Amino acid sequence: MASITLAELAQNLGLALNEAGHKASELQVVGLATLASAGQGQLSFLSNPKYASQLPRSNASAFIVTPEIGEQLDKPCLLSESPYLAYAHASQLFAGLRVVNTDESALTGVHPSAVISAEACIGDHVRIGPHAVIESGVVIGSHCSIGAGVSIGANAVLGDYCRLNANVVLYDSVHIGDRVTIHSGSVIGADGFGYAFDGQKSVKIAQLGSVFIGSDVEIGAGTTIDRGALDDTRIGNGVKIDNQVQIGHNCTVGDHTVICGCTALAGSTHVGRYCLIGGGVGITGHLSIVDKVSISAMSMVSKSIDKPGVYASGALVQESTQWRRNAVALTKLAGLSKTVRQIEKRLTE
Amino acid sequence: MASITLAELAQNLGLALNEAGHKASELQVVGLATLASAGQGQLSFLSNPKYASQLPRSNASAFIVTPEIGEQLDKPCLLSESPYLAYAHASQLFAGLRVVNTDESALTGVHPSAVISAEACIGDHVRIGPHAVIESGVVIGSHCSIGAGVSIGANAVLGDYCRLNANVVLYDSVHIGDRVTIHSGSVIGADGFGYAFDGQKSVKIAQLGSVFIGSDVEIGAGTTIDRGALDDTRIGNGVKIDNQVQIGHNCTVGDHTVICGCTALAGSTHVGRYCLIGGGVGITGHLSIVDKVSISAMSMVSKSIDKPGVYASGALVQESTQWRRNAVALTKLAGLSKTVRQIEKRLTE
Amino acid sequence: MASITLAELAQNLGLALNEAGHKASELQVVGLATLASAGQGQLSFLSNPKYASQLPRSNASAFIVTPEIGEQLDKPCLLSESPYLAYAHASQLFAGLRVVNTDESALTGVHPSAVISAEACIGDHVRIGPHAVIESGVVIGSHCSIGAGVSIGANAVLGDYCRLNANVVLYDSVHIGDRVTIHSGSVIGADGFGYAFDGQKSVKIAQLGSVFIGSDVEIGAGTTIDRGALDDTRIGNGVKIDNQVQIGHNCTVGDHTVICGCTALAGSTHVGRYCLIGGGVGITGHLSIVDKVSISAMSMVSKSIDKPGVYASGALVQESTQWRRNAVALTKLAGLSKTVRQIEKRLTE
Repeated sequence: MASITLAELAQNLGLALNEAGHKASELQVVGLATLASAGQGQLSFLSNPKYASQLPRSNASAFIVTPEIGEQLDKPCLLSESPYLAYAHASQLFAGLRVVNTDESALTGVHPSAVISAEACIGDHVRIGPHAVIESGVVIGSHCSIGAGVSIGANAVLGDYCRLNANVVLYDSVHIGDRVTIHSGSVIGADGFGYAFDGQKSVKIAQLGSVFIGSDVEIGAGTTIDRGALDDTRIGNGVKIDNQVQIGHNCTVGDHTVICGCTALAGSTHVGRYCLIGGGVGITGHLSIVDKVSISAMSMVSKSIDKPGVYASGALVQESTQWRRNAVALTKLAGLSKTVRQIEKRLTE
Repeated sequence: MASITLAELAQNLGLALNEAGHKASELQVVGLATLASAGQGQLSFLSNPKYASQLPRSNASAFIVTPEIGEQLDKPCLLSESPYLAYAHASQLFAGLRVVNTDESALTGVHPSAVISAEACIGDHVRIGPHAVIESGVVIGSHCSIGAGVSIGANAVLGDYCRLNANVVLYDSVHIGDRVTIHSGSVIGADGFGYAFDGQKSVKIAQLGSVFIGSDVEIGAGTTIDRGALDDTRIGNGVKIDNQVQIGHNCTVGDHTVICGCTALAGSTHVGRYCLIGGGVGITGHLSIVDKVSISAMSMVSKSIDKPGVYASGALVQESTQWRRNAVALTKLAGLSKTVRQIEKRLTE
Repeated sequence: MASITLAELAQNLGLALNEAGHKASELQVVGLATLASAGQGQLSFLSNPKYASQLPRSNASAFIVTPEIGEQLDKPCLLSESPYLAYAHASQLFAGLRVVNTDESALTGVHPSAVISAEACIGDHVRIGPHAVIESGVVIGSHCSIGAGVSIGANAVLGDYCRLNANVVLYDSVHIGDRVTIHSGSVIGADGFGYAFDGQKSVKIAQLGSVFIGSDVEIGAGTTIDRGALDDTRIGNGVKIDNQVQIGHNCTVGDHTVICGCTALAGSTHVGRYCLIGGGVGITGHLSIVDKVSISAMSMVSKSIDKPGVYASGALVQESTQWRRNAVALTKLAGLSKTVRQIEKRLTE
């Protein structure tokens, strides 16, 4: 594996070294690991004070810690006010070293098995993997990487430095900004779910809108974002979406909002900026959620939220026989509540 | 973009025009939009009276409205007792115009990179996209469109006018009726989840059944429908299934039922006709649900439902500290209920 | 269809025959079916006493039953203390007969359209389907079957007798044991969902770990298992995972645990051995669940479970107007509880 000296690391991350760090500035750092699993030559970090007791026992050769901790420690340390953020930057640096080390060049350039319309426009330094399909009118910016088996529908547009992993599907006319990563199996721009019932059967409403995704967005594996019925579905800049998320037609998601796995937004719902939506959340249609709202995992949101804050609705797990008694009692709660009000009234009379 | 005159639109949709509409019968209509976003040359519609106030301010050039509204309005109107249904039909018409306008012919016919068994039987006017794989014994009806990277297993059968979008997978022996659309990433006919525990390990139960899907069915993106263990999994005619739905082995879904996104049916559950199952619903196995049942989003259904009606079980979202108090109280609800009954008894003694 | 005599079946399954079975030992058995749907020549089974009344009316030609039942029955029976387990073994036997019968050879060997790096190492008797992509450094054991459109990233390792169905994606460096089956559309090794917030935006934490999957594992369709941030995500031996399950980065799942459809494990959660996790369950991050825990469908688990047992948290479905009253009452439950305590206190004073 490639390595980097501690001094180079400090420079790359813009961090100061503690005294022991200065002495060890020529140390070869070969990777990143947790306090518990780090070995010789590896860098670790302490961001959660809960794990501070692991620090002295860790076999890591260097650490990212706060200045308060690092200045008292006789081990090589990089000093950061935000060790977790510094760890994020360091992780990218080591990921880069690893790619250089792997033989990724084996499948670079445009693979001859890819099927690319003569009417598509492909930027410079674009990698297109085997069996990718790019239809007419597609525009792909520079430095993009299109994985094996990816399908890009007619007239879709990608900015620069995008990465579509293997078997991603973009339907026609989808627009994607710069530096967007989409993981395998995700489908962007399939038809929204819209029908008008004619008394006998469901009549399809053709989905004439599209999907617009901003820049610096990452979308996990197996996620689906539907095209709009008339207007477009819109995902803002810097949004991060985990695996198996479903975003219905005509939703809008504001800049820098984070959506965890298995969450679903029904159609025409608007989520603000800098929201944090936990995993397995369901948000029904035609709602508005303001900026800076956090929603806990597995909540059901069935009305709009107009105040920033933390919201929840899930039920706590219990041993099953206890749970059953409580679950049955819940089906009679309104009656119980009424009884209590009557008792109260009687006692105060 | 292609256009159509208002008179042609009226004729195509079988709708009358109001007086202003007759005068403007040669108006070129170029698209469909919401009241709020429609511009010059576009058609809009009013189906929900809640939005009636947007009508006078809308820049649309024509409207689909009820006769009551249209006859009093001095703007070109198509008159329909069901504007939403008329909008559905209009949306299909504009979608058709758009396809004609797009250069879809670039990738029509059977693409040379598709791998098609000599033992498969392909109907007339079938489009097969790049890198599709069609195994032996497959029968595909006429006028089907098989997208890029689609895989169709041995002996699967498709009717006429089906559309499988990019990267759909049909396992072997799956049967699909006419006019069925399946969106990207969906998997039909994977093994049902069945094991017998031998005291040490799970022994696989081979899934010997298949999946039968009726006609006029639409299935969203990322949905999975498993093959039966012994009998078949069956989806009726006119059923509409949204994205990321999971249907377990040996389920049956009655004609014209609608299932919203992220809902899951465990194995051997039977859902009736004309049901409406909301998003994120979980229905446990071996249940029966009669016709015309509606289930609200995120409900858990763990017993059969034998009466039509609307059912629900989700919990309402709350501000998080409030939620926590109530969630903890819920874990003691049966005890509370008992206490109240004791108090009641004591007071009536 | 191929057939097998009853005597051969008994021998293959290691089961005794009852008296009527001995007399009919040359009976040709052509398939397996439920008591209700079995016809002439088919084998059925009775494992759930609830269905015993169907036995006399069944048209099956032979049955798998317990010795107690079979010895009193004047129909050909295979005798097993565990008819359900015997059925599992029989199902595999009939599945094998069916494959021999189907022309699977049409697409065997390595299909010429597959793209296989010269730096990959492929074992003996491996089938590679059309348009599969195998990158450099990949190692595939013997007797594996790689479906159409499968993508295997650089340096991934598969043991012997693995089966990846069409359009499965393995990211780079994923390790998979022997006899592992993965169904279509599943994605193993995509990036875990990790970011550090810098006050303005989410900074990606490169996911430097991988995914290790043991032997005898089956993974359903549309399931996603993310690679670890620093350490690896690990799935034990004999684990069975259904469709559309999400397993976050750095999770570990113990041997022989079974996870039903649409369940999600957030990051860094540890599930023990021989657990049974129902469908639609959500388990939040950084928890530990001991061995032999069962969790009912649609439960939310937000704290560690340190005792074997059965756990639940879902709410029971109700008719909608009743539900609404109770759901509203639930949002005030802590207050109600306080009121009851006050009444109690007052009455005991």
